[in-house]
Amino acid sequence: MAVDPKKALIKNRVAIVRDLDNGDDVADYLYANKLFTEDMRDSVLQEPEKDKKNRLILDTLGRRGQKAAKGLHDAFLDTENSDLAKLLAPYIRVIESEENRYRPKEWPPNSEEQDKMQKDSVRRIKDLKSPSYIHEYTDENVYEIRNKTRGKVFIINNVEFQTKLSTRQGSEKDAENMKSLFTELHFDVVQEDNLTGQDMLKFLKEERNKVDWNAMDCVILVVMSHGHTTGIFGTDGQEIELKKITELFESSQCPGLNEKPRLVFVQACRGENKESDHIGTGVQVSGNDSVTEGVHAMSLIGKDQIDAVAEMPNEDLKEKKTVHSAADFLIAYATPEGTPAYRHIHVGSWFLNAIVWTFKYHAHQEEIQHMLLKVNELVSQGRTMAGNLTVSEIKNNLRKKFYFFPGVYDDPPKFIDG
Amino acid sequence: MAVDPKKALIKNRVAIVRDLDNGDDVADYLYANKLFTEDMRDSVLQEPEKDKKNRLILDTLGRRGQKAAKGLHDAFLDTENSDLAKLLAPYIRVIESEENRYRPKEWPPNSEEQDKMQKDSVRRIKDLKSPSYIHEYTDENVYEIRNKTRGKVFIINNVEFQTKLSTRQGSEKDAENMKSLFTELHFDVVQEDNLTGQDMLKFLKEERNKVDWNAMDCVILVVMSHGHTTGIFGTDGQEIELKKITELFESSQCPGLNEKPRLVFVQACRGENKESDHIGTGVQVSGNDSVTEGVHAMSLIGKDQIDAVAEMPNEDLKEKKTVHSAADFLIAYATPEGTPAYRHIHVGSWFLNAIVWTFKYHAHQEEIQHMLLKVNELVSQGRTMAGNLTVSEIKNNLRKKFYFFPGVYDDPPKFIDG
Repeated sequence: MAVDPKKALIKNRVAIVRDLDNGDDVADYLYANKLFTEDMRDSVLQEPEKDKKNRLILDTLGRRGQKAAKGLHDAFLDTENSDLAKLLAPYIRVIESEENRYRPKEWPPNSEEQDKMQKDSVRRIKDLKSPSYIHEYTDENVYEIRNKTRGKVFIINNVEFQTKLSTRQGSEKDAENMKSLFTELHFDVVQEDNLTGQDMLKFLKEERNKVDWNAMDCVILVVMSHGHTTGIFGTDGQEIELKKITELFESSQCPGLNEKPRLVFVQACRGENKESDHIGTGVQVSGNDSVTEGVHAMSLIGKDQIDAVAEMPNEDLKEKKTVHSAADFLIAYATPEGTPAYRHIHVGSWFLNAIVWTFKYHAHQEEIQHMLLKVNELVSQGRTMAGNLTVSEIKNNLRKKFYFFPGVYDDPPKFIDG
Repeated sequence: MAVDPKKALIKNRVAIVRDLDNGDDVADYLYANKLFTEDMRDSVLQEPEKDKKNRLILDTLGRRGQKAAKGLHDAFLDTENSDLAKLLAPYIRVIESEENRYRPKEWPPNSEEQDKMQKDSVRRIKDLKSPSYIHEYTDENVYEIRNKTRGKVFIINNVEFQTKLSTRQGSEKDAENMKSLFTELHFDVVQEDNLTGQDMLKFLKEERNKVDWNAMDCVILVVMSHGHTTGIFGTDGQEIELKKITELFESSQCPGLNEKPRLVFVQACRGENKESDHIGTGVQVSGNDSVTEGVHAMSLIGKDQIDAVAEMPNEDLKEKKTVHSAADFLIAYATPEGTPAYRHIHVGSWFLNAIVWTFKYHAHQEEIQHMLLKVNELVSQGRTMAGNLTVSEIKNNLRKKFYFFPGVYDDPPKFIDG
């Protein structure tokens, strides 16, 4: 029978109340390990009756979530209550294995952990009635994400270049991961590989024009290529300013998206200023390491920057503007301006892989700003063989919180099947 | 006697259970207004006994927070229960006045609202035992903010320029607001007015070198001046790259801040690309409107960009690097790249004023990313007479959540007096 880690304290309450003889020591341990405040510990110490003391410990811990069971288990081990610790052990094993699934032990992850993650599905909201969840769902400070299909994801995946730019090994992993992640998050995903500069713009414009955006909650762009400063390379070596890509989805050109969120994820270099920790990973694995997304002084055909053909804002739609054209955009970059981004040729880029790891296990609970803090943290853990490192960077003009609300749609919320 | 809005339902429970004769209508109203799910409404409809039905309504609403009392009040008005509505009215008045204090009715705010806000203190954490609060306080995904003095705030307030750049009227309001806000948030604030380009760097370097950063939780910079693209103007017209300012606090130059958060707030133009809603405020108030922070093709002495004297990273400290130099920075800009920022000459800049309004009423509950969404939203509401508008922009390389935790320090938490 499956062990429910949330029931660790309830299922063992009777035994703990009956058998724990040194509750004061346990309270001291919990205080030393920050699960109890000073006041909480003092209340326990002041309780003269054993049963009441033990119940007070459990009731106080009951408000501490899953940390509580683990803390109590360790407290029992530390206070010569190994029989009680054994009662909790099966629950602790489940808690620990769940925790470990949330976060890889190394970054980039080893292939075993990566495989395990890839078999997992996006976690879904399981309780339609949860008040805090409903509170956020209908809150005016939260973007409305409640269509059965939230919107479109357009993926540009440039791998093979007609110029001397290197083949972007591992990018196919990123593309697969992005596609399945956003499909599970209830988006309709359209992917194109190996587009020239002009074809990137053409692809996005054509796909955009097919959609009735009034029926959509939002749009997501994922751009994977080599890059430099503010531009993204087409397979012909033409550099397209990212701004030319994002402005296709500004309200003046796409009025159905007015005041709706646009999320943009960019896996590309933004310069060549490397930083190193002056240590390196020390592991010499030839041809098996993380590589950059930059141009690295290679001689490029078409290296000169050519602006894409600008599209004029639709004059009829000018009156529609209710917020600044930059508002409601969030652009997440693999790396800070001026620096290279890194990609592992087997598990994919540090950045997009961190997006998958984070969104998969946290999208049902956390707002996107907070998920992206986790992404920044994961990316910052990466090191190349030479010790090079980076951190992802978020440019945020959103005006509201953004939740994916995986598993539910409509208002009042209903479960999405499948 | 003061009315406690949280007690609206409890204090009137007996009367409501006794006197409400059409609970089904009330449940329907609450469902139509999204306070009840379909299931919640159906449970009420299926309950045959009046008393039990009414208790079920109250118990279900009890999990809905302050929205509940307001929703029930409106439901009573809508279902011909005006006597019951009157019972709730005093609580609703308190709830509404509290809500209104959080957010001005217009943006920029009128002087009456602004005065009222300025008399308010920063809201503080009032319950040391709140589990969710303690959870965040010691969570490894939250920056440690728990010294009695959190750190330093350095304010640069350039108002009068030796060049033809206009006097920045209203900036003194911003400076006062910033100083009192961050003092109340337990920072030690150092302000300098009217610095030349080189003196801005000199001021920051000297102040930085006075501090034992190992004893500090973080640093905050507030820069107020005219600006252009990536630079900030000194009073002599010299443009200093913002990067030159922020790198003074990178770990290589300030190792005591390694892995600690650095927050930077920039009130300055970043270009001259104006956007308008093509409507305008329609109010003609000569000399009483919002002005920009830009240079506007004025002939400038010293307009040419001169790089500040670069400071070399301290070689001894190189080994200290554990994360990328950009990590743990959050830079909040008044406006997107390439566009002008706006300032109201009486109440201060749209952006910094939005920071004060938001941090004052939400810092005790909300994480900084979420407060900055509110700031983006407030700034996006502003319009000049000509209908010009903007939105603030956040560049975020933080790796953890950031709470100000106003009112408490130390671990386990204690109240800060005063």
